[in-house]
Amino acid sequence: MLVVQKYGGSSVAGPERIRRVAQRVVDLRRQGDDVVVVVSAMGDTTDELISLVQKITDNPPEREMDMLLSTGEQVSIALLAMAINKLGEKVISLTGPQVGILTDDVHTKARIVEIKTDRLKEELAAGQVVVVAGFQGMNTANDITTLGRGGSDTTAVALAAALKADLCEIFTDVDGVFTADPRLVPDARKLPCVSYDEMLELAHLGAAVLHPRSVECAKIYGIPLHVRSSFNHNLGTIIKEVGEMEKALVVTGIAHDLNVAKIGLFDVPDRPGIAWTIFQALADENVNVDIIIQSAMRNGVNDISFTVAQSDLKKALAVVEKVQHRVEAGGYTYDENVAKVSIVGAGMVSNPGVAAMMFDALARENINLDMISTSEIKISCIIKASEAARAVRALHRRFSSCVENENCVASA
Amino acid sequence: MLVVQKYGGSSVAGPERIRRVAQRVVDLRRQGDDVVVVVSAMGDTTDELISLVQKITDNPPEREMDMLLSTGEQVSIALLAMAINKLGEKVISLTGPQVGILTDDVHTKARIVEIKTDRLKEELAAGQVVVVAGFQGMNTANDITTLGRGGSDTTAVALAAALKADLCEIFTDVDGVFTADPRLVPDARKLPCVSYDEMLELAHLGAAVLHPRSVECAKIYGIPLHVRSSFNHNLGTIIKEVGEMEKALVVTGIAHDLNVAKIGLFDVPDRPGIAWTIFQALADENVNVDIIIQSAMRNGVNDISFTVAQSDLKKALAVVEKVQHRVEAGGYTYDENVAKVSIVGAGMVSNPGVAAMMFDALARENINLDMISTSEIKISCIIKASEAARAVRALHRRFSSCVENENCVASA
Repeated sequence: MLVVQKYGGSSVAGPERIRRVAQRVVDLRRQGDDVVVVVSAMGDTTDELISLVQKITDNPPEREMDMLLSTGEQVSIALLAMAINKLGEKVISLTGPQVGILTDDVHTKARIVEIKTDRLKEELAAGQVVVVAGFQGMNTANDITTLGRGGSDTTAVALAAALKADLCEIFTDVDGVFTADPRLVPDARKLPCVSYDEMLELAHLGAAVLHPRSVECAKIYGIPLHVRSSFNHNLGTIIKEVGEMEKALVVTGIAHDLNVAKIGLFDVPDRPGIAWTIFQALADENVNVDIIIQSAMRNGVNDISFTVAQSDLKKALAVVEKVQHRVEAGGYTYDENVAKVSIVGAGMVSNPGVAAMMFDALARENINLDMISTSEIKISCIIKASEAARAVRALHRRFSSCVENENCVASA
Repeated sequence: MLVVQKYGGSSVAGPERIRRVAQRVVDLRRQGDDVVVVVSAMGDTTDELISLVQKITDNPPEREMDMLLSTGEQVSIALLAMAINKLGEKVISLTGPQVGILTDDVHTKARIVEIKTDRLKEELAAGQVVVVAGFQGMNTANDITTLGRGGSDTTAVALAAALKADLCEIFTDVDGVFTADPRLVPDARKLPCVSYDEMLELAHLGAAVLHPRSVECAKIYGIPLHVRSSFNHNLGTIIKEVGEMEKALVVTGIAHDLNVAKIGLFDVPDRPGIAWTIFQALADENVNVDIIIQSAMRNGVNDISFTVAQSDLKKALAVVEKVQHRVEAGGYTYDENVAKVSIVGAGMVSNPGVAAMMFDALARENINLDMISTSEIKISCIIKASEAARAVRALHRRFSSCVENENCVASA
């Protein structure tokens, strides 16, 4: 069996933890598996490097940022390889460029274009454990690129796909994917199994275990992921394609996101092209819009509301300030004190009563719904930020019979 | 003009110093010169990485040491490139492998085999300042190698040779090469100019300004070196081929080395092959022997003495312990409390009185000579370590009229 394992920054923060990861890798290897290990930079390395940069310039060239930050993973792979060698196993470390992880030219957020597998296969055939630097690759100019947020997860999944690995294990500092954030909901339960689509919704909705990019890649290539803790040997959460039969489970998990701001344009004349004008202007400034709601027309005018990440609010307001005159809006408002709570589940589409159950659960808590957005497998509501924790708990209680999921099949 | 500059670790230790180096590079660039800058790892980076290793293993694979340590220079080049960019100049950083510095396979002390100059020339032609990571290269397996001690100096000189640069400036934390160690001899003077051969003797003899390897390389390719301080704009010391005329200067400098230990085998039978047996055994253990003295034969037996670096003493004694029986020596002694003082000068060979002057100067200080070794351009004496400082001062006084060298020509 060929297994790709990925260990995040907290799993390799310090020599002691690196030795523990090495032991874990060696244990697997001694079961007879071929092992490729992807690691992130140790703990706070990246932050320390960035703080050095800030003492030099406020506008570093992105190519040089990649040159700088890629050293973090290079340190990790060398140290982990030494620790594995110390335990008596054959091992070799490889940087992203050495592996042949070819990316596009977009420094600091490059996308993988191709992975050459010759060297990897050669080293595996020679009986080596191969330790690969996550988060980094090389463009056609032979320059080092980095993959941006979630980069190491993406490296691991892409390697698993390129090598046709049997399994990709993502080690992190939590036990797996939970039915809700355990910090908010003490009786949240670990999900033994979720589908790629559910995980994508959960990932996008603020369950920060896995970056959506890596889940997308796993889905496309059909790589089963196992998200688990590097601090114990518990089974975590398996993410894989789930068949129709298994979709009977209505609600898989409750997600919430506090990094939300709402903007509303009011009294916008109802003319074709208005929405395009607004959202193209936002896209031009790289502002990602999440939920968009257009109210029913009243006296020939609409209200258009949408949400953005709080970090994008300033940029978004600057766009709205300019665009409001072009679309002849009556004005605009915004609110930072909002949150998004969502229920996610692959079986939702065939259970029309679920939305009503959600709204009822929130109404009973006197929680007002500001905006509502639905997809085939999720329902999201924008509410007051101060009510988010209470909302998540109420939803978890209400759907608690659904969110038991011991074998990927449960009755709603 | 094409100039290669090299800045050592202390010159780039911290953001403030990196900004200062950037300003210096930019000033040169704005005079219209093409500039290639070679940098070492920042200050204590290498020591910090090694201390991490020690918490993981006492026997790290050398390939992984190179993978690890090469990150130090990569951090430096990225930060320096950012600082130069901030000052408004076009700049690009390149690792050793990216430049195409090809080495042999000897990890941790690789030798440069070839430097591909395509990318360098391309970037220079595009008007870029090119910042290159010192100390590192790549072997034919595409693996990162490091060049060992004096590696960054060697990178700079080798790049200057490959690019046929007009000048190679070595920036360090001292003002240049001195007639003696200024900490011992307060009136030691900076040498404006020395020949490659003199510098080689001075470098080998403990004037730790430049690694002998880089001086050898500069001599072979005829690259003039300028050793100077990165903390001021004083002219330093030029190292270049010096013509016959200029060799009139008898004594260029006084060097001393405290990292010396002496070993003596006594009553060794005078048979062919004895010396070979001893010194081959030492070479087999990678012990570098410096001075070797065989005393005149007495009753069919010899005394053989030699010096090694103090760090090699333990290894050397283990060899001697074994070999003494094979060569039927009467026994052996050793002494760690010795030092080597030397006078160096290209004109010495044609001035037979110099040795006598040296011995006389030391005798007047009641300093006993333990061993004496001479070459065309230097005379070294092994003396008690406790007398080294006094010896250096006495020699500097005695040869003080010779060690004035304002324009590379002086009267002895």
